Amino acid sequence: MTHNAPPRGFPPEEFEARTAKAQSAMAKAGLSGLLLMTEAEVRYFSGFHTLFWQSPTRPWFLFVPAQGKPIAVIPEIGAMLMRQTWLDDIRTWDAPNPGDDGISLLTELLSPLANQSASIGVLKGHETSLRMPLGDYERLITTLPGLRIEDATGLVRSLRMVKSPREIEKLSHICAVGSRSFECVPDFAKAGTPLDEVFRSFRHAALDAGADDVPYLVGGADHGGYRDVISPPSARPLQTHDILMLDTGATWDGYFCDFDRNFAIGQADDLSRRAYDVLWRATEAGIAAARPGATCRELFQSMQSVITEMDSSGGDVGRLGHGLGMQLTEWPSHAAFDDTVIQENMVLTLEPSLSYGDGRIMVHEEDIVIRSSGAELLTTRADSELPVI
Amino acid sequence: MTHNAPPRGFPPEEFEARTAKAQSAMAKAGLSGLLLMTEAEVRYFSGFHTLFWQSPTRPWFLFVPAQGKPIAVIPEIGAMLMRQTWLDDIRTWDAPNPGDDGISLLTELLSPLANQSASIGVLKGHETSLRMPLGDYERLITTLPGLRIEDATGLVRSLRMVKSPREIEKLSHICAVGSRSFECVPDFAKAGTPLDEVFRSFRHAALDAGADDVPYLVGGADHGGYRDVISPPSARPLQTHDILMLDTGATWDGYFCDFDRNFAIGQADDLSRRAYDVLWRATEAGIAAARPGATCRELFQSMQSVITEMDSSGGDVGRLGHGLGMQLTEWPSHAAFDDTVIQENMVLTLEPSLSYGDGRIMVHEEDIVIRSSGAELLTTRADSELPVI
Repeated sequence: MTHNAPPRGFPPEEFEARTAKAQSAMAKAGLSGLLLMTEAEVRYFSGFHTLFWQSPTRPWFLFVPAQGKPIAVIPEIGAMLMRQTWLDDIRTWDAPNPGDDGISLLTELLSPLANQSASIGVLKGHETSLRMPLGDYERLITTLPGLRIEDATGLVRSLRMVKSPREIEKLSHICAVGSRSFECVPDFAKAGTPLDEVFRSFRHAALDAGADDVPYLVGGADHGGYRDVISPPSARPLQTHDILMLDTGATWDGYFCDFDRNFAIGQADDLSRRAYDVLWRATEAGIAAARPGATCRELFQSMQSVITEMDSSGGDVGRLGHGLGMQLTEWPSHAAFDDTVIQENMVLTLEPSLSYGDGRIMVHEEDIVIRSSGAELLTTRADSELPVI
Repeated sequence: MTHNAPPRGFPPEEFEARTAKAQSAMAKAGLSGLLLMTEAEVRYFSGFHTLFWQSPTRPWFLFVPAQGKPIAVIPEIGAMLMRQTWLDDIRTWDAPNPGDDGISLLTELLSPLANQSASIGVLKGHETSLRMPLGDYERLITTLPGLRIEDATGLVRSLRMVKSPREIEKLSHICAVGSRSFECVPDFAKAGTPLDEVFRSFRHAALDAGADDVPYLVGGADHGGYRDVISPPSARPLQTHDILMLDTGATWDGYFCDFDRNFAIGQADDLSRRAYDVLWRATEAGIAAARPGATCRELFQSMQSVITEMDSSGGDVGRLGHGLGMQLTEWPSHAAFDDTVIQENMVLTLEPSLSYGDGRIMVHEEDIVIRSSGAELLTTRADSELPVI
């Protein structure tokens, strides 16, 4: 089952390197610290890895100072697990405590900086959220009027977008697991099988192929093409002439794959075959364009120029792929608005989509890593013609 | 597999009733609207149900006005699915768009209220977070200086804590699915089996028992007792004298169960047997105390008074259970700080825990619904003695 799985976790030098890079960027930006509270960021700098984030009850904080190791300010329930990471300074409180869920500890930690009118970074930008009660955040900054809060999204984004060799190893592994899972689809997706049973079988297949979990699985199936790409499954049985799409974010050791596959049930209609061909070639164009030095906008345009053969509407998805890592979707976006320069060791999805016929939609997706010479597929490339089950 | 599963989704009258209750409470609180953006709240008032929330890229907004149906302000990618709900007014933009991710649409929607210096509610309190970029939120309220923002946590909390009969049906179903899953544990949890394989087998068992997904699965196993209750599994093989705990949040139609089971592998040590007995009796005390009119504090104290037979430290978990529904953990908390009055149709977990021996911890958990006559178990009650596999 494990198919040469890489080691789980990371050695301390991984976190040392990430922290050193962050501190170097903080120095340039004049920041005396980063206050982080979202799962991916806390894990990125500490290695703290737990599904307990599913519970919205307790906030978790990590402070990256200008020098030295990050400092954890966390609920006592996480102390044992946090002590297994490379961190030394772990401050805890008995959470939940609605009257003071870490705010006193944060105030104590940040007061010296506030007294110096120092600046700290918080994530305030695109694709971020505030994972603590807004009221507590407002109280914290009111209590520390000297503290300057800057948006550190760009800083964190620039670090997280470029993956380390160990991260790429994990991402490569889960993409291979996903590819093996999709190979099983013809075994269970047949005319007469309800779509929700197809989903259930896919989850089983992904676990058998070595996934830890399948946090994301969406898709659709309908006569001559599906119309929606974010729905949970219905109980409608697959029928001949259906186009079936499954899109999965399976995880291994906290890293995601994110790609999809399309299948025709029994027989494929000409329009869907053509849509598939256009998207397959758009993906080829994306693979060719995804080189260090190109921008995400150029990558978008390379795919879009093929898509316009069949659909010039621009689509409903808003972009044609994105970054991939600890989150199902990460910075950057392959979109006209994103002029991020593609760098070696970025892990990206290529996700061209189009609308066709009577409100139908088709989506393709592959996962790649950027090497000095160009894109390397992490997923087993989809068939060049719409596969018929 | 489905074991008389209830119907999926909700009829429009469910959402009408929720919205009417919210609007009645809003009128009393002087609120002209609620601006919601978290998955559970958006789904609660609209029925919009998708795993797409896994992607942090796009914000989603639902505005509950003083009268009339809620208004969705969402990325175009979700329009098709949202049109299947009971909503009529669905406003979309091409997301992601870092320059304007719904902010113009929100500004347009809220400007008339801002011009009247009206108040709207936003979730700012305990167990909430701001699921949009903080910078965008700050920009929005700066653009609308007349708008008064109140914390609507109490209002939303009071609605969501008391479940409807249809919600209870779903919660009862997933708790039964979870109970059947735990019955399979002796089949695959044996000395020599690595813990991560036990987790994988449990996921398979839960899917086979009818779960849609298993978003939460934690646990531990160690000689004479585990020490951590939020970790992902290690590859350490189970050994005779281990105490194994598995705690799962499986889902069906978007509703969670949340309970755990303890097992001794091969043979149980006396101290662990005693800890188990204390927690089993603490749970009994909780079941007896969980009646309409009692407070969560009293429920906490009823369990704590049994726990102190063996552990008077107060524990690391911070509470002895919580609400259960669309989220793994919801308001209220069975804790000394929470004086919430227990009401009929609340669905709660009872989760007594204690520390014993050399840093070992044990946790029990059952799920209940409050009836007029008292607690009714949704889970199949754990054995009264520590089961030995």
